Amino acid sequence: MTRGEMKYEGKAKRVYATENPHEYVVEYKDDATAFNAQKRGSWQGKGATNNAITAHLYPQLEAAGIPTHFIEKLSDREQRVKAVTIVPVEVIVRNTAAGSFSKRLGVEEGTKLSRPVVEYCYKSDELGDPLINTDTALALGWAEEKDLKRIRELALQIRDFLVPYFEKRGVNLIDFKLEFGKLPDGEIVLADEISPDTCRFWDMETNEKMDKDRFRRDLGGIEEAYAEMLRRVTAEG
Amino acid sequence: MTRGEMKYEGKAKRVYATENPHEYVVEYKDDATAFNAQKRGSWQGKGATNNAITAHLYPQLEAAGIPTHFIEKLSDREQRVKAVTIVPVEVIVRNTAAGSFSKRLGVEEGTKLSRPVVEYCYKSDELGDPLINTDTALALGWAEEKDLKRIRELALQIRDFLVPYFEKRGVNLIDFKLEFGKLPDGEIVLADEISPDTCRFWDMETNEKMDKDRFRRDLGGIEEAYAEMLRRVTAEG
Repeated sequence: MTRGEMKYEGKAKRVYATENPHEYVVEYKDDATAFNAQKRGSWQGKGATNNAITAHLYPQLEAAGIPTHFIEKLSDREQRVKAVTIVPVEVIVRNTAAGSFSKRLGVEEGTKLSRPVVEYCYKSDELGDPLINTDTALALGWAEEKDLKRIRELALQIRDFLVPYFEKRGVNLIDFKLEFGKLPDGEIVLADEISPDTCRFWDMETNEKMDKDRFRRDLGGIEEAYAEMLRRVTAEG
Repeated sequence: MTRGEMKYEGKAKRVYATENPHEYVVEYKDDATAFNAQKRGSWQGKGATNNAITAHLYPQLEAAGIPTHFIEKLSDREQRVKAVTIVPVEVIVRNTAAGSFSKRLGVEEGTKLSRPVVEYCYKSDELGDPLINTDTALALGWAEEKDLKRIRELALQIRDFLVPYFEKRGVNLIDFKLEFGKLPDGEIVLADEISPDTCRFWDMETNEKMDKDRFRRDLGGIEEAYAEMLRRVTAEG
C-alpha cells in the first residue's frame, strides 16, 4: 500500500489515494479542533488512539450487518478503507441531551431523551456544519431521498449496536456523530470514525466525561481519558 | 363578544378569553419586532392590515379544505377565533432561499428551491425559536407523532393554495411561517396569522420586498408595502 495524492485534509484526518482506485489510506492526526476550529490543540497519541478504537469497532459493526468503508489497520495511525464519495450530510444521534443540543434548546445536560434524536448537519467547515433537515438536503441536492432513508436506518442500527456495547464496558453513550459514504455501485456505507472525537462517552458510575469535551471545556486528563476509552473498547465484552 | 382575561401576549398580538370557553378574541397590535425582539418598532395601521389580510385568507383556506381557528373579524384589529392549544412547533415553508436560511446555508437569496422545504422551530422567545426537527419535538414531548404528520400535510396543502393565489396577484411567495393549534377534540387547525409579518412577498415584476423585511432591513416604505399587499390580497383573483 503506497500513499498517492492527498485527496482530502480534514481537522483530524488526511485521506490519500492509493495505487488501487477503489481504496484510500486514512491517516489519523494528533490535531484536535473544537467550536468550528476556533479552538485548536493536539496531543501525542490522539491519532493512534482514535485509529485503534475505530479499527476495533468497524469490523464488529460489519459483523452486525452494517456496511462500512473499513478494510484494515495498516499502522498506528493509518487504515486502509474503501474509496467512497462522502455524503455531505453529517448525522448526529442523541440518546441524552448534551452540548449544543442542550444549549440551543434549554434542556439540561444529562437529560435522557424519551427516544433517540437523529439530527443532520451540512458538512461545511466554512459554514460551521449548520443544522439542516432532510427537506433541505434534498432541495439543495446534497443527498438523494433513498440514500437519506438508508442513512437514517443505518444510524439507528449503529445506535442499537453501540449502546449495549458501551454499557457492558461501563460507558454511557450520550451522543455520536457519523458520516456516510457512497460506493461506486451506489451502496451507502459508514465512513469516517467512531472515537472519543466523535462521541460523548460518560462513565456510568461517575458521569465523568471520557471524550473530546475534556478538550473543549479544558477539563484536563484528556490523554488519560482517550487511553481509558481504548482500554474499555478493546476489553472483552 | 366581550373580552375577558388576557391569555397570552405575543410580539404582535394579544389573545383574550371570552364568555364562551371555546372561543378567544385575538387583537392585532401595531408593534413589530425582529431578530428575536432585538429590534423593535411600530407603525399605525399594521395591526389592522394584518388582521384584514388574515381575515380575508383564512375563510378561503377553510373553503379549500384546510381547517383554521378563524371564526370572524370583529373590528379593525380584532377577530374571533376558536380556542386552541398552540402546538409549540412553528412551521416554516420555503419555496425560495432567503433570510436566515440563505445566511445559515450559504445559499444566495432568491435561489429557487427544487422542492419545498418545511422547517420546524421550537416556539420559545427566550431561546430565539431554535430550529429543531420532528425527532426532537417528539423526544422532548412538544408534539405527538400523528399531529406532526398532520401539520406537515396541512402546511404543504396551504402552500399549494397560497402559491397560485399570490402568483395571480403578481406576488412571489418566497417563504411563510405557520402556527397550528389543537381543538379539545384533538383536531389540528391552522392558527396565528398569514400576513406580511409572517410571509416573504416579492413583487413578481420587480422583486421588490413587500413584507417585514422592509422593517428588518430598514428599507423604508413599509406602511405602503403592507397596504399594497392588502390591496392585492383582496383583489379579485
